[in-house]
Amino acid sequence: MSDVKWLNESEMAAWMAYVAATHLLERRVEDQLKVDADLTHAQYEILAKLSQDPGGRMRMTELANRLIVSKSGLTYQIGQLERRGLVTREACPSDERGVLAVLTEEGKRCLERTAPGHVAVVRAFLIDQLTPEEVESMRQIMTKAAAAMRAAPAGPLRPGKIPG
Amino acid sequence: MSDVKWLNESEMAAWMAYVAATHLLERRVEDQLKVDADLTHAQYEILAKLSQDPGGRMRMTELANRLIVSKSGLTYQIGQLERRGLVTREACPSDERGVLAVLTEEGKRCLERTAPGHVAVVRAFLIDQLTPEEVESMRQIMTKAAAAMRAAPAGPLRPGKIPG
Repeated sequence: MSDVKWLNESEMAAWMAYVAATHLLERRVEDQLKVDADLTHAQYEILAKLSQDPGGRMRMTELANRLIVSKSGLTYQIGQLERRGLVTREACPSDERGVLAVLTEEGKRCLERTAPGHVAVVRAFLIDQLTPEEVESMRQIMTKAAAAMRAAPAGPLRPGKIPG
Repeated sequence: MSDVKWLNESEMAAWMAYVAATHLLERRVEDQLKVDADLTHAQYEILAKLSQDPGGRMRMTELANRLIVSKSGLTYQIGQLERRGLVTREACPSDERGVLAVLTEEGKRCLERTAPGHVAVVRAFLIDQLTPEEVESMRQIMTKAAAAMRAAPAGPLRPGKIPG
């Protein structure tokens, strides 16, 4: 235990604030999406990402990368959305092994109905609490953290394998 | 839809970075705790909070407040920890309706075994990626967001009830 680099006081305060805020916000986001549209946050993100493509379609592998979910996790979520008629799957014309996820008209309407309430939560409890400088600082902080995790192999850290 | 205050480009970039980093980090934290100690993050936080008291004991209501979980959620998690002998429950001597959660010796040893790996994850993927100024900025940002959520009534936001 003696060579463990524990968090100092300010690091611990920052981490405790992070844990509290992120857990509270995830619950607020999930609650709004559940009540307004019976969607999980993961499902909402899938609809939102698909809507960014002009044709509302994206290869499953690319969608998984953009959402940072496992392939199996995405397949499950897409199945749930497909059952509700919000998304369909199509064979990819340019790649015989590829599968496209496609936003349906009903999926588009669902997203349009749900987005205003979602944005209101994100604004009320995070963005509108911050100065523009803090918004930019948060972008930098979260981008650095996400990049470190994308670069590191999956699975628990082991001594000697901890990225610096 | 016309009066919805959508996120502008920099706000959206900050929010997307937040969503990616927080989801990736939660998965890293959960994976480490699962593999090293078969604990969830919520269970680890309970053991850690109890260990901050010299006697390793805290009223359930205070523990719920500090952890920002519902009373029913905490009761479930404590039940799980109790089954493994990591926590016990005792009647509160100063309040006949009160219940104390108490960290056992085994719970203390479990926490001591697990904490170094947990801190390593938090450092590697968040704290050590940041400058001291960014750590302080993160503390301020997350403290503001958490305060806004603690002050707002539970349940989805409704037009006219959105805190400014």
